[in-house]
Amino acid sequence: MEKKNVTFADIAKYTGFSKTTVSRYFNDPDSLTVENQDKIAEALKILDYKENKLAKVLANGKTEIVGIIVPNLYMHYYSDIINHIISTYEKYNYKFLLFSGNGNVDTERKYIKELLAYNIEGMIILSHTIPSEELASYDLPVVAVEREDKHVCSVKTDNCMGGVQAASLLVKSGCDIVIHVNADVSTDVPAYGRIQGFKEFCESNNVEHRVILTELGNNFDENCREIEKLFAELEELYSDKVTGIFMSNDTHANILLNVIFRKYGKLPPKYKIMGFDDSPVSREAVMPISTIGQQVDVMADEVMQVLIMQMDERKKRRPQPLKEPVHKVVTPILIQRDTAYPINSSQSM
Amino acid sequence: MEKKNVTFADIAKYTGFSKTTVSRYFNDPDSLTVENQDKIAEALKILDYKENKLAKVLANGKTEIVGIIVPNLYMHYYSDIINHIISTYEKYNYKFLLFSGNGNVDTERKYIKELLAYNIEGMIILSHTIPSEELASYDLPVVAVEREDKHVCSVKTDNCMGGVQAASLLVKSGCDIVIHVNADVSTDVPAYGRIQGFKEFCESNNVEHRVILTELGNNFDENCREIEKLFAELEELYSDKVTGIFMSNDTHANILLNVIFRKYGKLPPKYKIMGFDDSPVSREAVMPISTIGQQVDVMADEVMQVLIMQMDERKKRRPQPLKEPVHKVVTPILIQRDTAYPINSSQSM
Repeated sequence: MEKKNVTFADIAKYTGFSKTTVSRYFNDPDSLTVENQDKIAEALKILDYKENKLAKVLANGKTEIVGIIVPNLYMHYYSDIINHIISTYEKYNYKFLLFSGNGNVDTERKYIKELLAYNIEGMIILSHTIPSEELASYDLPVVAVEREDKHVCSVKTDNCMGGVQAASLLVKSGCDIVIHVNADVSTDVPAYGRIQGFKEFCESNNVEHRVILTELGNNFDENCREIEKLFAELEELYSDKVTGIFMSNDTHANILLNVIFRKYGKLPPKYKIMGFDDSPVSREAVMPISTIGQQVDVMADEVMQVLIMQMDERKKRRPQPLKEPVHKVVTPILIQRDTAYPINSSQSM
Repeated sequence: MEKKNVTFADIAKYTGFSKTTVSRYFNDPDSLTVENQDKIAEALKILDYKENKLAKVLANGKTEIVGIIVPNLYMHYYSDIINHIISTYEKYNYKFLLFSGNGNVDTERKYIKELLAYNIEGMIILSHTIPSEELASYDLPVVAVEREDKHVCSVKTDNCMGGVQAASLLVKSGCDIVIHVNADVSTDVPAYGRIQGFKEFCESNNVEHRVILTELGNNFDENCREIEKLFAELEELYSDKVTGIFMSNDTHANILLNVIFRKYGKLPPKYKIMGFDDSPVSREAVMPISTIGQQVDVMADEVMQVLIMQMDERKKRRPQPLKEPVHKVVTPILIQRDTAYPINSSQSM
């Protein structure tokens, strides 16, 4: 707005090419050598050619746009990692077309088809609906985040390590029995690792433990009802034991804490609670909840690196397809707060 | 992928135009009449021409892409309304380039400049950094959401009504004095209406009241410290009165509730609390918090309607610029939960 538009004549003058050549760059770039294409592209940049994005797309498909498909932004984990991914703009200059599928696989497929027509350079997939085999068939750089990833590159948290950390802290905080409550997740989903890590730690350390795989419902009210029921059962079963409960996420851990608080006006020392995610509710709870934090900032950067590696390869004259998908695993962080913290003797109380 | 690419020859055959005419449609659309442009555009759609998005952009600037600038996705209000806006894809077919400015006005300006180069059709602005006068100068359809909006179209909650609703419920729940805690917000920001509505209700109903304008800090730990201090003061000042406290958002209301709960193991009947936003924390709190809900689904749809009205006008042969910016106001909803609810006699306790 502040300055005069750059014309084909300006570009011709700057590069020494004829106006016809410049025009061919936009309309039929393949009729120019790659070197001459690069010279003109460079000139457009220097002259701050207004239509340079579209020109670039036409010349070499570099839209600098990446699509993101997320299940929703309602769950804090998703909005948090999306916030970090889109904030990489300053570092990598990619722009992001964001879509939220809300679990509708047909809408997601329709949207992806549109994305491809826009010549986006790559896709970041956080939603679980489309199998990785189908994602791989799009013939586009893809990074899957914290989901099934057999056929595509991915970034995920070391959930197994998270399960170990949670069980270990509960034991250190004096529990006689530790219990993990989770949904019956499929073994090819990263979150399954939480169950695995929890079990492995308990078995190899001879800790009395139990894994409860159960559906706690799809909304907050259902969650509350189910967790209240569950707690009543546990209280009857383990009335004589210091009981550590590792919930599969902070939302559920917070509901459990509130159920106990409403009954006792406090968290009695006989109960220890662990969450997972380090979402805001874990800090904002009536008592700060001990949890396992995913390093979303690190994950967001890994996502971009794995994606850019693939996108850059495509821009080479003879791109080499990846032999195997790359899977990056990020270590989670144990966050000790008030609902579970180590005591000196693990047999106290 | 599943089918053969549509060629210029296919389009020529279908439309009855020569291949040269079809080529001109892509390279120099203005050399064709609008009618012929439309015929070819229609054919591209029917034939499912793969590059139709780019073709469309070149022909008439209809990218069907809208830019969104948000301050962050961390605050639930933002991620919630963004979720609703991007979910309008199924209804309106617009795609969204999302950017989070994190308060950096220079990065926002740089990003917007890039957006313009992509020929986006419009912009939705939730961030507060760039004055509306500057936004209007971009000469692009803009809708501002819940922010200063003097020079651009906007959608906002009726914050004044929200302030009235909050004060009214506190009085109905038996408070002798009602207190509103807020930051010292500028009068041109919609959130200022909360203060105004609260005051107006109390003054015209002769309710003992107080407005405390104070900074509660920029992060959770600062918030906790400040709210703890504030509560200690209020408790001393109004020890003999049923005290209603209307916090400016649910996060602060929840912190206040937790401060009281940690002290008393419950919310004593002498205290009533109201939040604002109906964010998840208001439901997930140790006791469900009464609050004022913004109708984000309604707001998201209003945003798209105000934007599409402007974008459609631009596509006309002789677009008429808006004489004045359009401002839509959405009514908030009073949500009665456990921290403040009407009693029969307003003088009980």
